[in-house]
Amino acid sequence: MSPARRRRIVVLTGGVGGAKLVDGLYRLLPPDSLTAVVNTGDDFRHLGLAISPDIDTLLYTVSGRANRAQGWGREGETWEFMAALRSIGGPGWFQLGDGDLALHVARTHALAQGQSLSTVIAGFASAWGLAMRVLPMSDDPVATIVDTDEGSLAFQIYFVERRCAPAVRAIRFDGAVAARALPEALAAIAEADAIFIAPSNPWLSVDPLLALPGMRQALAQARVPVVAISPLVGGQAVKGPTAKLMGELGLTANNAAIAAHYAGLIDALIVHEGDDQPDGVTCHATNTLMPGERDRMRLAREALALAKTLTQ
Amino acid sequence: MSPARRRRIVVLTGGVGGAKLVDGLYRLLPPDSLTAVVNTGDDFRHLGLAISPDIDTLLYTVSGRANRAQGWGREGETWEFMAALRSIGGPGWFQLGDGDLALHVARTHALAQGQSLSTVIAGFASAWGLAMRVLPMSDDPVATIVDTDEGSLAFQIYFVERRCAPAVRAIRFDGAVAARALPEALAAIAEADAIFIAPSNPWLSVDPLLALPGMRQALAQARVPVVAISPLVGGQAVKGPTAKLMGELGLTANNAAIAAHYAGLIDALIVHEGDDQPDGVTCHATNTLMPGERDRMRLAREALALAKTLTQ
Repeated sequence: MSPARRRRIVVLTGGVGGAKLVDGLYRLLPPDSLTAVVNTGDDFRHLGLAISPDIDTLLYTVSGRANRAQGWGREGETWEFMAALRSIGGPGWFQLGDGDLALHVARTHALAQGQSLSTVIAGFASAWGLAMRVLPMSDDPVATIVDTDEGSLAFQIYFVERRCAPAVRAIRFDGAVAARALPEALAAIAEADAIFIAPSNPWLSVDPLLALPGMRQALAQARVPVVAISPLVGGQAVKGPTAKLMGELGLTANNAAIAAHYAGLIDALIVHEGDDQPDGVTCHATNTLMPGERDRMRLAREALALAKTLTQ
Repeated sequence: MSPARRRRIVVLTGGVGGAKLVDGLYRLLPPDSLTAVVNTGDDFRHLGLAISPDIDTLLYTVSGRANRAQGWGREGETWEFMAALRSIGGPGWFQLGDGDLALHVARTHALAQGQSLSTVIAGFASAWGLAMRVLPMSDDPVATIVDTDEGSLAFQIYFVERRCAPAVRAIRFDGAVAARALPEALAAIAEADAIFIAPSNPWLSVDPLLALPGMRQALAQARVPVVAISPLVGGQAVKGPTAKLMGELGLTANNAAIAAHYAGLIDALIVHEGDDQPDGVTCHATNTLMPGERDRMRLAREALALAKTLTQ
């Protein structure tokens, strides 16, 4: 790698936790050197609107618009739409903020006019002046379906309406086999100098990407370091149902299970300090919590340094 | 008419001015005795959303949600959606309030699922507890097109984006000939004890209704009083382009021209005090301005009394 050439960094990511790592990398890296490939298995239609939760979380986070206290949505969001919707008997289980609606309405309209999701998202990122690429994992619809003890649930029903209460038996990704991984995402992986798997839920947020034809192979064949950041902290997820889900899938909620899940794909695993460091994979222990900018940048710096070590 | 039987009142109406008269009648009449048949020629798609300006204005007005100072939209409306939409380069010429969006999103979704517009609107009215019927003039799309010295303009482009600046040469109603007047509207007219034509723009807001097959005949054949309220006050419209439009169509902006336009349809015309009282039609002069509740109820009371006189 020529020292004059900019490093090209790719992150495979889901929602909130992954967006924080991407934010740290984005703040650290030179402009236009970062590509996020984002899970769209959570995408769904609600009231006819095309909603892409993980992509929007990422856009809000790296553009400084995310609501940090809440963990999702926009900072300073207002809720007049929801109040009016309730007044006409509309569904209240999925919260649509007034400002958030702009992305949903504009995306729905653009998709209906034949634009691809990746084009729409590139437009949002460009309008907000983001100097990085935000790529949906695919322009084709893929739907994460959670098979539970209460039957098969669409992801948002399981995650938002049912708050992850039903016990999970299996997870599948409807449409993944027929979907095409975004060519720009595969190209970014092939051309990357380092690849990170964000601390997102491996089964719910990263597996949809890996289920796409060619994606797993692209990762496995990468001749550059692939580093995953464990989503576990003391055997629990910082946010979301990872630990509960692992138990329901018959797994122990530790880094050994995370490493086993990514076996053959990753060269190193970043784990939270004090947590288990599985054999057979290079481990780097550090504080993986990222409440603020500094934490995000520190973790991003350590991840980049680890990748550089592995390159040498 | 048996004195025990409730009077059935029908109003043909457009937007703001008409909604005020309907509001006055609604406040005055017993529950479930009023039917508004509303212009949908202004309806259009914006960002893929199905927008029905005149219907929504009426719903907001009679439910006490209308913004009185502004003359359109909801009281206490917020504008986070528009701010966010602008941030991603979306169109700013048509203002979509945060609460207002609930009607548009719910309507668009229901129409896409195969519900008729009249069913959707009945649902809104019912959710808000309105004890009157709000009927779109048709469940079929009709689009008011304004032929101007700058070419043919869709109504909202002429009215909102261009603020009625282009000179009008002709007005047409795309789809009107093939559209079906709402059967409930025709039935309401046939069964009415009195029919009012609201002080809406005769050419832009009332003519779309009259262009529907059977609607003009239903009015002409009505054996009950048909009373129009002139939209002119001192040769000007209270709101909107009526007077300017009349000039461009080669008409004098006076009540004689209004009466001539409705010739064969109306039995009486309510005019603003001091304005011209055309020959050949019963005229009742009063203050037709309706800024507040009291004015609306007073005008409604006078209109009902006039109709009663004509019945005897």
